[in-house]
Amino acid sequence: MRQSHLFTKTRKEAPADEVSKNAQLLIRAGFIHKEMAGVYDYLPLGLKVLENIKNIIREEMNTIGGQEVFLSTLQDKDAWEKTGRWSDEVIDIWFKTKLKNDTEIGLASTHEEAMTKIMAHHVQSAKDLPFSVYQFQNKFRNETRAKSGIMRTREFIMKDLYSFHTSQEDLDEYYEKVSVAYTRIFERVGLGESTYKTFASGGIFSKFSHEFQTISDTGEDTMYVHEDKKIAVNKEVLTNEVLAELGISRNDLVEKKAIEVGNIFKLGTRFSEPLELSYVSENGEKKPVIMGSYGIGPGRLMGTIVESLSDDKGIIWPKEVSPFAVHLLRLGTGEESLKVANELYADLRKKSIDVLYDDRDLRPGEKFADSDLIGIPVRLVISDKTLAENKIEIKYRTSPDSELVTREEVMKILSQ
Amino acid sequence: MRQSHLFTKTRKEAPADEVSKNAQLLIRAGFIHKEMAGVYDYLPLGLKVLENIKNIIREEMNTIGGQEVFLSTLQDKDAWEKTGRWSDEVIDIWFKTKLKNDTEIGLASTHEEAMTKIMAHHVQSAKDLPFSVYQFQNKFRNETRAKSGIMRTREFIMKDLYSFHTSQEDLDEYYEKVSVAYTRIFERVGLGESTYKTFASGGIFSKFSHEFQTISDTGEDTMYVHEDKKIAVNKEVLTNEVLAELGISRNDLVEKKAIEVGNIFKLGTRFSEPLELSYVSENGEKKPVIMGSYGIGPGRLMGTIVESLSDDKGIIWPKEVSPFAVHLLRLGTGEESLKVANELYADLRKKSIDVLYDDRDLRPGEKFADSDLIGIPVRLVISDKTLAENKIEIKYRTSPDSELVTREEVMKILSQ
Repeated sequence: MRQSHLFTKTRKEAPADEVSKNAQLLIRAGFIHKEMAGVYDYLPLGLKVLENIKNIIREEMNTIGGQEVFLSTLQDKDAWEKTGRWSDEVIDIWFKTKLKNDTEIGLASTHEEAMTKIMAHHVQSAKDLPFSVYQFQNKFRNETRAKSGIMRTREFIMKDLYSFHTSQEDLDEYYEKVSVAYTRIFERVGLGESTYKTFASGGIFSKFSHEFQTISDTGEDTMYVHEDKKIAVNKEVLTNEVLAELGISRNDLVEKKAIEVGNIFKLGTRFSEPLELSYVSENGEKKPVIMGSYGIGPGRLMGTIVESLSDDKGIIWPKEVSPFAVHLLRLGTGEESLKVANELYADLRKKSIDVLYDDRDLRPGEKFADSDLIGIPVRLVISDKTLAENKIEIKYRTSPDSELVTREEVMKILSQ
Repeated sequence: MRQSHLFTKTRKEAPADEVSKNAQLLIRAGFIHKEMAGVYDYLPLGLKVLENIKNIIREEMNTIGGQEVFLSTLQDKDAWEKTGRWSDEVIDIWFKTKLKNDTEIGLASTHEEAMTKIMAHHVQSAKDLPFSVYQFQNKFRNETRAKSGIMRTREFIMKDLYSFHTSQEDLDEYYEKVSVAYTRIFERVGLGESTYKTFASGGIFSKFSHEFQTISDTGEDTMYVHEDKKIAVNKEVLTNEVLAELGISRNDLVEKKAIEVGNIFKLGTRFSEPLELSYVSENGEKKPVIMGSYGIGPGRLMGTIVESLSDDKGIIWPKEVSPFAVHLLRLGTGEESLKVANELYADLRKKSIDVLYDDRDLRPGEKFADSDLIGIPVRLVISDKTLAENKIEIKYRTSPDSELVTREEVMKILSQ
C-alpha cells in the first residue's frame, strides 16, 4: 500500500496518561487508538498485526482438529447461576447490563458456560466424542486498574479453545497436543526463546494447570526459572513437595518477572455436571463429559511482542506478524527515483510481496524515523545516491548496517 | 471436511419459541445456536457462511479504497454527550454498564462518534483528505422485540464504512461509488434481483438517503416499487412532490414488504462539528470535515438469504456464500463405495474444492434430508447403484433432477 493513502500519521509523543511502553509505541506509530483507559481501537497497521497473529493461532488450532465458532457477548444469567459464577463476589470483573424489561444480562468474560450449554444439543453418545471447538471473540473484564496498554484491557480479543472427552486419559492426550501447538504459536510470533511453559495451580481435576509465561521486566507475574532444565514454576505452587516432584532445587531457581501469554486447564466435569452435558456410554450409562479449556489473547501477545522486541527507535516486528513484509522508501525527488521506486513497488506486488511504499514528499530523516518506529523487518531505500550506483539499499530492522544490492538481488532475497 | 468430525447435528424440530423461518432453518441445520431471544451463536457451518459474506463485502470495500480498522465496543460517554446522543431518549436502544468506579459507559450501537474522534488525531490539512475506513464489529442494540431470527438481534456484526471529505461534491462522488459497490455485494450474495435501492428520508445535509431493500413477505419495512423503472420509495418520503421529482405516478407503484439490508447516508458535518474534526484548507481556513456513513449487516444478510432462498426441504445457498462448494454423500456400505468415495474426497481436496463429505453410517433417507436442509449447491452421491454403472450422481440444490456422470466429468464441472 502507498503510505500517502494510509490515513494514520505517526506522532512524536504518546498521550501523557499512557504509561506502558507497548501502548506508547503502538499509539505513536499509529497502530492503535486509546478510546479510554483499558480500551483500545485497532487502526489499519494494528489490525494487520492482530490478524496475522490470529491466523497463526487459527492454523495451529485447525492442525489439532479445532472447529471454529463465534459465540455471543451477551449472556443469559441462567447458566452462570447453575455453575455458581453469576455473583460479583465469585467473578469480580463482571460487566452487567439490562434488557428493556429489566432482566439482568452479562457481558462474557469467558465462555465455558455458553460452550457447555451448546454442546448439550449436539452430544448424545460416546460416538459424538471427542472433539474441540475454538473462537476468537471479544471478552469483557471490568478491571480496576488498566495500566498495561493492550496487555490488560477491559475489552479484548481472546482465542479460547474447549475440548470434550469421554475419559481423563483422552483429555490428558489432547492437553499435550494443545501444549505442543501453543509452543509452536509462541515460536512463530517471535517469542519462542523467552516463553516458558510454567507449572501453575491445578484444581479438583488435576494437580497442575500450565501457563505460558514470557520473561519481561514489565510482567505482572513472578515466576521461578530453572534455566538449564527450561522448567518454570509459579509462586503459588513453589512448595518443597513440588520441587521434589520436579527434581529441582530451590537454589537453582532464578526469580523473573513475566507476562502470562497463554494458559491450558483441565476442567474435568466442573461445567458439564451443573449444565448437564452428558453422553450415553457403550454400556448404556449416562456420564458427564470431561472438558479442557485453553486460552491465548492475541492482543496481549501483540503487546508482549512490542514490550520484548523494540529499541529506542521503535518496534521490531518478527517476520510472521509484521504488518508488511517490506518498507520501501523513496528518498530522491527526481524523475528517475520516482520511476525506479514505482517500478519496484509494482514488481513486489506482482510477486505478492506485501509492501508499504513511502511515496510521501518528506525529508529523509522523517522517513527513516517513521520506518524505525513502525518496525517492518526489511527496509529498502531508493535515493539519488543509490541510483548513481544503479543499486537499492537494503537494511534489516534488527541490524545497524545496510547494504547496496541490485534490483535482481532484492527480488531474490524477498522471494525466499 | 468429514461430516463425521463435524460436532453439530441436524434437528427435526426448531425450538418452540423460535418463530422466524431463518432462525428455524439455521438452528435445525446446525448453523446457529440461540443463546437467548435476539442473541445467537455462530456454529462452524454458520460461521463459514458469515465469513464468506464478510469476505465479499471486504473485497468490495477494498476496491473503493476502504481501510479496515476494528474499534471498541465500550464507549466513553464524553463524545456522545457532545453529539447529543448519550440520552436514552435520543438513542432508545442503548445498553449501558458501569466501571468499578461507577463511571457509566455504553456499548456501541454505531461508531460515528468513535470514528470522528480518532480522525481528529490524523487529519490536519486538506492533503490528508479524502479517505474512507470500515470495520466489521459487533453492535449492541437493546431491542424491545427480537422475533426475526438473525435479522434483528440485540448483538450483531455490522460492516460500517465512514468517508471523510473536504467538499460536498467529493462526498457525492464517493457516495455513488459506495452505492455501486453495494449493488455488487447484493448481486454476489444472490439477492441482486430482489434488492432495490430505495429513496428514504435524508437529513440536514441531503434530501434523500438511500436504503437497500430486499423484497420479502417477512420484511418489517413497507416500500413502494415501480417495477418497470426499478425505482422504490419508502413510505416516509412518498409525497406528491417526491413522485413528481422522480417522474413516477402513484398508480404505477406496488406496495411490497421488504427487509432493509443496507443503507447509505450523507452525514455532512453532523459529527465533525461537535467533535471538532477539522482541516486547514489551502487558503489557511479551518473547516469541518464532510462525512458519509454506510452500513451492511452480514448476519442480517445471511438471514435474508435464508428467508428468500429456501424451500420446504431446507436452505438453498448461493454459490459464493455456501459453507462448502460440494456435498459428497457416500451411501453404499461396501468396500468399493468406501474406496471410491475416499478417493474422490481426496481428489477434490487436492484441487482445493471445499467439500463436506458425509462419511457417516446412516440410512440414505437421513443423508438426503440432511443434505437438502444444509443446502450446499452441488450434491454428489456414490452408491452401489451408481458404482454399478461406474458413475457418480450429481444434483444441484436448485433442481429436482439428478444426472449420472463420470469421475472425470465431476472434476471438470467442479473446476469451472
